[in-house]
Amino acid sequence: MAKDLARLVGPEGFSTDPEDLLVYRHDAIAYFAQGDPEAVVLPTDTAQAAAVMAYASQNHIPLTPRGAGSGLSGGCTPVQGGIVLDTKRLKGIQEINRGNLTAKAQAGVVLADFQQAVEAQGFFYPPDPQSKSVCTLGGNVATRAGGPRAVKYGTTGNYVLGLEAVLPNGELIRTGSACVKHSAGYDLTHLLTGSEGTLALITQATLRLLPKPPATCTALAVCPSMEMAARIVSETIANGVVPSMLELLTTASLAVFNKFVSPPLPEEGEACLLMEFDGTAQEALRQAQEMAKACRDMGAMDVRVVSQPEEAAVYWMVRSRLYPLVVSRFKRLVTEDVTVPRDRIPEFAAKVQRIAEETGLSMGLTGHAGDGNMHPTIRMDEISDELQQRADQGMAKVIKAGLALGGVISGEHGVGVHKAQFLELELGQEQIKLMQRIKKAFDPKGIMNPGKLWPPEMEG
Amino acid sequence: MAKDLARLVGPEGFSTDPEDLLVYRHDAIAYFAQGDPEAVVLPTDTAQAAAVMAYASQNHIPLTPRGAGSGLSGGCTPVQGGIVLDTKRLKGIQEINRGNLTAKAQAGVVLADFQQAVEAQGFFYPPDPQSKSVCTLGGNVATRAGGPRAVKYGTTGNYVLGLEAVLPNGELIRTGSACVKHSAGYDLTHLLTGSEGTLALITQATLRLLPKPPATCTALAVCPSMEMAARIVSETIANGVVPSMLELLTTASLAVFNKFVSPPLPEEGEACLLMEFDGTAQEALRQAQEMAKACRDMGAMDVRVVSQPEEAAVYWMVRSRLYPLVVSRFKRLVTEDVTVPRDRIPEFAAKVQRIAEETGLSMGLTGHAGDGNMHPTIRMDEISDELQQRADQGMAKVIKAGLALGGVISGEHGVGVHKAQFLELELGQEQIKLMQRIKKAFDPKGIMNPGKLWPPEMEG
Repeated sequence: MAKDLARLVGPEGFSTDPEDLLVYRHDAIAYFAQGDPEAVVLPTDTAQAAAVMAYASQNHIPLTPRGAGSGLSGGCTPVQGGIVLDTKRLKGIQEINRGNLTAKAQAGVVLADFQQAVEAQGFFYPPDPQSKSVCTLGGNVATRAGGPRAVKYGTTGNYVLGLEAVLPNGELIRTGSACVKHSAGYDLTHLLTGSEGTLALITQATLRLLPKPPATCTALAVCPSMEMAARIVSETIANGVVPSMLELLTTASLAVFNKFVSPPLPEEGEACLLMEFDGTAQEALRQAQEMAKACRDMGAMDVRVVSQPEEAAVYWMVRSRLYPLVVSRFKRLVTEDVTVPRDRIPEFAAKVQRIAEETGLSMGLTGHAGDGNMHPTIRMDEISDELQQRADQGMAKVIKAGLALGGVISGEHGVGVHKAQFLELELGQEQIKLMQRIKKAFDPKGIMNPGKLWPPEMEG
Repeated sequence: MAKDLARLVGPEGFSTDPEDLLVYRHDAIAYFAQGDPEAVVLPTDTAQAAAVMAYASQNHIPLTPRGAGSGLSGGCTPVQGGIVLDTKRLKGIQEINRGNLTAKAQAGVVLADFQQAVEAQGFFYPPDPQSKSVCTLGGNVATRAGGPRAVKYGTTGNYVLGLEAVLPNGELIRTGSACVKHSAGYDLTHLLTGSEGTLALITQATLRLLPKPPATCTALAVCPSMEMAARIVSETIANGVVPSMLELLTTASLAVFNKFVSPPLPEEGEACLLMEFDGTAQEALRQAQEMAKACRDMGAMDVRVVSQPEEAAVYWMVRSRLYPLVVSRFKRLVTEDVTVPRDRIPEFAAKVQRIAEETGLSMGLTGHAGDGNMHPTIRMDEISDELQQRADQGMAKVIKAGLALGGVISGEHGVGVHKAQFLELELGQEQIKLMQRIKKAFDPKGIMNPGKLWPPEMEG
């Protein structure tokens, strides 16, 4: 294989060295590691990628596309070995079009670099997952990545207008267009978006940009109960006050804030809402003030409007560090992204609490409350098969509780290997069979990222 | 067949009377009529619809879903006869959820009725095709319908969160969810959106709502050249002034405005921009004034800000009557919906003008300039095979000119039978073959709305 790959991508474009390959066994969750890749290939352009795909197809070699490997569900774990196709050298931003408010960029472009490039020209690309400093546009598209701005701006899927993709047999297709309106043929752009590398290799995306809102204003409210926090969210949004970010935190995390902000926040109560509004300076302030008034009227304990950008940045800096901080305090943190309709958050929170009590597990719940995308966690003080099994069982109960409320098993991470066992609970057998027939339409030999989305025993 | 259908949907639920069937031979464009349906079926619920689908499948009977029949590309023309499934009795609005800002409604609900129902509760459903007083939500989803608000709010696809659909064999699937964020499995919701009834029958949609903007403000600018009008559009949007509607009219239509508005608009020049801004009253006015200033600075001849709702309504009333008025003045009006990237509108306009001169045809060009969705028309003073053939050839040139500028053959009408011959020019043979394999995954017997999207000679 090494000789063949050298011919296709040059000696610099691949590795079969076991040491190089170690990191390609898993994504950001090391204990999801499964399978041993035989080679990693790093094409520099679409033609090289297509040649590798055709080669893998001709030789029935499993091929797993990979962005930054920052996923949280084992989506790029090469469970059947074969070739890992690392897109990191496909890193060109080919166009930022002012007149049409669109951009074209390759799959391996890091999200933060892309955001910086468009912001330098006065534009805005809202999708904003926590991993933005490393994750790639290709990975974002493949997982339909979200982030805190979805409440106002939607997720990656709302910004993908078109894709360049290589089918498993090496054929190139260009889906969609640079037009916002498009109604000709099946929407393969959105079929590939969120397909987690199981249908085709995404090599380039045409993305929609927005004008950059000139100002933001932050607001914060500490609430005595989770139920009140969730009710505030639903009511204010229904009344037209839509934040650009809306995070729901437990008051336990306010101790961390209090190391940085003054006056200190009250650490009693159950929930804290951290919100940002954007628009002109006047509009952003007006919305923050309307939200603050609603929070006070509905009984929140400490309500703040933080209009100074420097001061607001402190709140958001702390927010961004909460997850790494929690991770570092435990031996292992199991994190999910169960999403429920916004108005069902209080019921979901109550259910999670009950499951924690019943199972004796240490569970937490934070999330992007504006869009119902919650992050239930299980904190493990030790690592053992017995505890992991209990944690898995506990999280299964949480996922089922979310589904029972009209929710979904994944809001932004994707299914990967980790949640494959739950897909049938959400979609039913018939819909999975239909998806398997669609997969066959793209990938008749089944080489693309095998072992994902549904469990192997469901394969036809 | 009549006996079988009576068993499935009751004697009131179908007709095989040739007189009843006449209207089902075509959509809004009568001369697209092709094929003779044997029966029309009007199910009252999903179960009846599923039973009819299973029956058609078992007996290999072609089945053509139909909304209001207000389409403009022959999408619901039953070219192979068989059964037309009319969804007009599926007209329940099952839920308008304030806490989650979502609604559930059946396929046969008329768009204007749905908009009225959600607006009565303070919400907003932006997709707004011209046919809104008759067209159905199911038809909107099936064609990915647009309208003038796409510049700020996107098209139907941006509001569909989930679907209930019946597969050709009668199986029911529920795709998506009521959650804005969803990343589990292939996005069948958007695959069905825009599939023009060729994959499955859409029976219900879960739709995203927005809070209703409290105010609007209208602005208007008459420009000496089409090029200037297009440049104004691109520049102001890039600078963050995004109208909620932005129509590009030719100055020829200003004579109609001048029957209703004063002072009269200058009828010289090439193009007129009619725009609406929304938000709080203050925000809407501010944006309209910024736009007006930009128009004056860039050289527009007559620039107006119309902040009084009653006065603004007159402008939009005239706008909505322009198309019917033009239609009534000619024996036939061939209308297309070629869409180009916003910044290519001036080039497209110049090309259309050149094609009109070369072919001697009477061509017009208006459209939703904010999103590049243009409506080139050919005005026919007489109906003859010879003139129709010349018109078809002329429009083919217009479509190819749009494609050459990175455009698409349809922005909002869909392909139907009318544009099937052009799909390959946009997508290429490989992508159409892939779409045909996807169609087989849904509809192995090929009963669903046959003869659409691609020409019959491309069928495998």
